[in-house]
Amino acid sequence: MMGEMHWSELELIRLFRDTANGPSPGLVKGIGDDCAVFENLDGRQWLTTTDLLVDQVHFDRSFHPPRLLGRKSMAVNFSDIAAMGGRVHFALISLALPASIEKEWIMQWYEGIGDMLAAWGCRLIGGDIARGALLTVNVVAIGSVAHGRAVMRDTARIGETIYVSGPLGSAAAGLEICRNPDRFETIDQRVRDSLRRHHLDPEPELELGSLLGDSGLVGAMQDLSDGLATDLAHIAVQSGVGAEIDAQALPAAEGLDEVAELAGLPKVSLQVSGGEDYRLVFTVKEHGDERLLSLIGERGMGPVYRIGKIIAGSGVLLRKDSACSDISFQGYQHTAGR
Amino acid sequence: MMGEMHWSELELIRLFRDTANGPSPGLVKGIGDDCAVFENLDGRQWLTTTDLLVDQVHFDRSFHPPRLLGRKSMAVNFSDIAAMGGRVHFALISLALPASIEKEWIMQWYEGIGDMLAAWGCRLIGGDIARGALLTVNVVAIGSVAHGRAVMRDTARIGETIYVSGPLGSAAAGLEICRNPDRFETIDQRVRDSLRRHHLDPEPELELGSLLGDSGLVGAMQDLSDGLATDLAHIAVQSGVGAEIDAQALPAAEGLDEVAELAGLPKVSLQVSGGEDYRLVFTVKEHGDERLLSLIGERGMGPVYRIGKIIAGSGVLLRKDSACSDISFQGYQHTAGR
Repeated sequence: MMGEMHWSELELIRLFRDTANGPSPGLVKGIGDDCAVFENLDGRQWLTTTDLLVDQVHFDRSFHPPRLLGRKSMAVNFSDIAAMGGRVHFALISLALPASIEKEWIMQWYEGIGDMLAAWGCRLIGGDIARGALLTVNVVAIGSVAHGRAVMRDTARIGETIYVSGPLGSAAAGLEICRNPDRFETIDQRVRDSLRRHHLDPEPELELGSLLGDSGLVGAMQDLSDGLATDLAHIAVQSGVGAEIDAQALPAAEGLDEVAELAGLPKVSLQVSGGEDYRLVFTVKEHGDERLLSLIGERGMGPVYRIGKIIAGSGVLLRKDSACSDISFQGYQHTAGR
Repeated sequence: MMGEMHWSELELIRLFRDTANGPSPGLVKGIGDDCAVFENLDGRQWLTTTDLLVDQVHFDRSFHPPRLLGRKSMAVNFSDIAAMGGRVHFALISLALPASIEKEWIMQWYEGIGDMLAAWGCRLIGGDIARGALLTVNVVAIGSVAHGRAVMRDTARIGETIYVSGPLGSAAAGLEICRNPDRFETIDQRVRDSLRRHHLDPEPELELGSLLGDSGLVGAMQDLSDGLATDLAHIAVQSGVGAEIDAQALPAAEGLDEVAELAGLPKVSLQVSGGEDYRLVFTVKEHGDERLLSLIGERGMGPVYRIGKIIAGSGVLLRKDSACSDISFQGYQHTAGR
């Protein structure tokens, strides 16, 4: 009834448990009991977030290498912690696995998980493994932030400037290339690889996020998962303000023009509606720009890109040449069979 | 491409968010930002656990009413918090939903979630909703326990007595009846309904669990999800001891004998290998029995059942008449298509 079996739950649980060892700040008990136990960290508050990734909806195993998918499973959650200005501590991972999946695939996927945990000092403290006809991954990340320093979405104020932390639309362009490699063969190989990497292996901006949070100069912040048009709309709606952005100011990675042209899409669509860039969009309090930019420079981070400002009213308004249109919530939607 | 659509992600997110309101101890920010934010509770440590439930593996929608499945999705996680001696505070729920699923089904399922959250003072603080070909639910529960009072699995000591908090095998018997109702028609309707309820709608033992934890009289504790043979084996292995249990002392609900006979199974198999009872198995420190039993009685809880003792050696030994066999890890396994 089970089809060919390449792995056992107990074996995988043992693997996960055995790699999740060593002490960790605040951790009392990790994997191996009914619950994990962790305790207060002085002067800090806890953050928690979760993301569910389903095969064929959120990723495509035909072109997504397992190790990079493991890294990305963690990165999308770490990105949410970054967007609050936090640092990461603990993770819980639930996995539904088809019996037919190769053990080698799982091992490589888990290697990617381990990479990210090690890179950011995060400890796996729990999870669940089950059989299921469709590969499904749920990750929970638990982080912390200095007391009262969490950067929310509902705290943008009129007059603040709006920034993004990197080029927009790169992941969407990379996804196009992964899906239809032939169509983009005329683009330089190095440029194609770089764009694909934005989709396959995004880096969470934890260092920049905690610098922005600690600075006290940031009004509101969010990570870019569904595209600027949607993510900035959340900030605008929740803060009760409008946002005006300048199409000319939107940063683009090398090759975005060519991908847009070959895909028959306006470049700006990729930039405002393309999902999964996992950059940060944030507002800077009035008169804070200069101090913040020099702080970012001193730490060797950035560049960050000023793309607009918070205004009275509502909606996300895109100015392009002399035209202006409301692009609120016109972001990316994960859809099965897209 | 999507098949008929009965619901939208945004609509469901709104529903979840709108029902998750009001203040909650320690909660700074609930649903609606990149992360939820919560803060220290004086003198307490945090607990966290997660369970992944997959359609056709962990439940069967053909006989599991959606509201009860919602309740059970929470109960199995709350049971893990109970097994540490904790109380519950927060939950995160991730949901993969086939586009074809009826909105009415989801609403009833969520009503069951809401029941359990309200009953135990737990707040939904996050989650994720995605499309997926197979209904999949991942729940995370976050609880707390008085500092240093978490009851672990690795702390059973030789000479301690072993107890369970309710009849064993009831849920397994109930599952048999749900699957093959015709076979058990000769059993009294009330008895059948009661057994079915043990499978469909288990109650987490949060009150008893925290009483046991607070008492300081309990050595080790775990909840019964995979059957006594497996769950007690975890305690034995992790504590480096053996466990001896007496088949005659294992409690059984009304009707278990008849189900066992009609199903052609030894009754004791249902009791030691039947999964999902979500009772507690715990050890009581030497000379603590009397005090603990009167404490339980005073609070109007119980009864609890003494089933054996912790011994030197290893394994879970079942004594039946004059025979003795090692039943370690012979518990229930969730298997697709079972």
